Amino acid sequence: MSQPIGKTRWAIAEGYIPAYSTGPEPQFTSHETACLLNSSDQDAHVEIMVYFNDREPVGPYRVTVPARRTKHLRFNDLSEPEPIPRDTDYASVIESDMPIVVQHTRLDSRQAENALLSTIAYASND
Amino acid sequence: MSQPIGKTRWAIAEGYIPAYSTGPEPQFTSHETACLLNSSDQDAHVEIMVYFNDREPVGPYRVTVPARRTKHLRFNDLSEPEPIPRDTDYASVIESDMPIVVQHTRLDSRQAENALLSTIAYASND
Amino acid sequence: MSQPIGKTRWAIAEGYIPAYSTGPEPQFTSHETACLLNSSDQDAHVEIMVYFNDREPVGPYRVTVPARRTKHLRFNDLSEPEPIPRDTDYASVIESDMPIVVQHTRLDSRQAENALLSTIAYASND
Amino acid sequence: MSQPIGKTRWAIAEGYIPAYSTGPEPQFTSHETACLLNSSDQDAHVEIMVYFNDREPVGPYRVTVPARRTKHLRFNDLSEPEPIPRDTDYASVIESDMPIVVQHTRLDSRQAENALLSTIAYASND
Repeated sequence: MSQPIGKTRWAIAEGYIPAYSTGPEPQFTSHETACLLNSSDQDAHVEIMVYFNDREPVGPYRVTVPARRTKHLRFNDLSEPEPIPRDTDYASVIESDMPIVVQHTRLDSRQAENALLSTIAYASND
Repeated sequence: MSQPIGKTRWAIAEGYIPAYSTGPEPQFTSHETACLLNSSDQDAHVEIMVYFNDREPVGPYRVTVPARRTKHLRFNDLSEPEPIPRDTDYASVIESDMPIVVQHTRLDSRQAENALLSTIAYASND
Repeated sequence: MSQPIGKTRWAIAEGYIPAYSTGPEPQFTSHETACLLNSSDQDAHVEIMVYFNDREPVGPYRVTVPARRTKHLRFNDLSEPEPIPRDTDYASVIESDMPIVVQHTRLDSRQAENALLSTIAYASND
Repeated sequence: MSQPIGKTRWAIAEGYIPAYSTGPEPQFTSHETACLLNSSDQDAHVEIMVYFNDREPVGPYRVTVPARRTKHLRFNDLSEPEPIPRDTDYASVIESDMPIVVQHTRLDSRQAENALLSTIAYASND
């Protein structure tokens, strides 16, 4: 790998953690994930700001993705400065000091059969 | 956050609101959403044009996304100048006076178990 | 709308029409769709080449998307020069003489409950 | 087709092969696929590096996509230098000596009704 792949600013406009789940945990817990890939040879220090419909943004949430590692970060697990509320629309902006790649995935297991969505996040050079 | 992330013109080529739904409302109402994120410090004034297969485009639909807010806009809820018909193919072009990020999501609950799709919309610099 | 949005070359690397379906037709017929949006004031003449795993590409399939219209083209319906086989991996390259936006969607109804996927296609300036 | 469409470096930040499956094989085997399209007139020699959460990357996995062909590569089938473990988060970087287009798809059939996700991968010019 010649050089790290990715960008340093990303956004996910869709965000929603279903309020309940069906099936064995943790695999079938309804969750929303930001998959972060750091293919570089230096740790990436990542900051996430979370935006809401009706109040000021919360954050930054901080996470480190070590060199040459991927971290599939469940928004469900974020707690500092505060947990992400369930059944609430949100969005996020993700900034890193190293180029990373970000993909957004949700598993919705509110019903007996789970549903999935995924998309590459929006990458910015700005 | 140094500067707002996003673009001012977006397009969603896929559009389809299923004709019926199964399960508790409003979470399981079949719907199609444009998730809009405005991370800037100024309100974003957004105009949406809706394109059809067999007639002239309708719009603009107008919506404001306040500064530092996200709005998950259900196409189901648009009413002015006219509602989006169900069970009909459409597409949309979204223009904003501030940079925004747009993601497209559908929940299809016509059957007992819901299905989901999502993708980042197409962003343009033009 | 100041100018048309989109690009003139697009690719969809994933292609697969499920072999069978469950549920009422045509809504729940398993299908794969290229959603084409032409927001310009001139008709877009579109040519689609279809690529396979083990034989030479087939095409071009020709379709016109009128000015200010969207066309949600089911690959299932393509017949000239030949139908797209079911249960077969393929991919496609889409070229237009006007800028268009392309989104790829599949509804898989092989089982009792349908599944959905969608993504913006890959756009090229080349 | 004037010239090949695509890029030579791609990344998929999401990666997860479900641990089990329901339904007839191989169509309903839970799987994760990188759909590769080589629209050029020369074979594309592709190398895939796989990244994990807690150990060094593995690879390169090597695959050739012949000229004017698509290959829908199941990560499940990769064996050299080692199989991809199930029920494990991973990510991948895909490099090719010819421009290609990469799309990421998962079929999750752990439950009775399958779920699907798909997204265009992240393309890089670097």
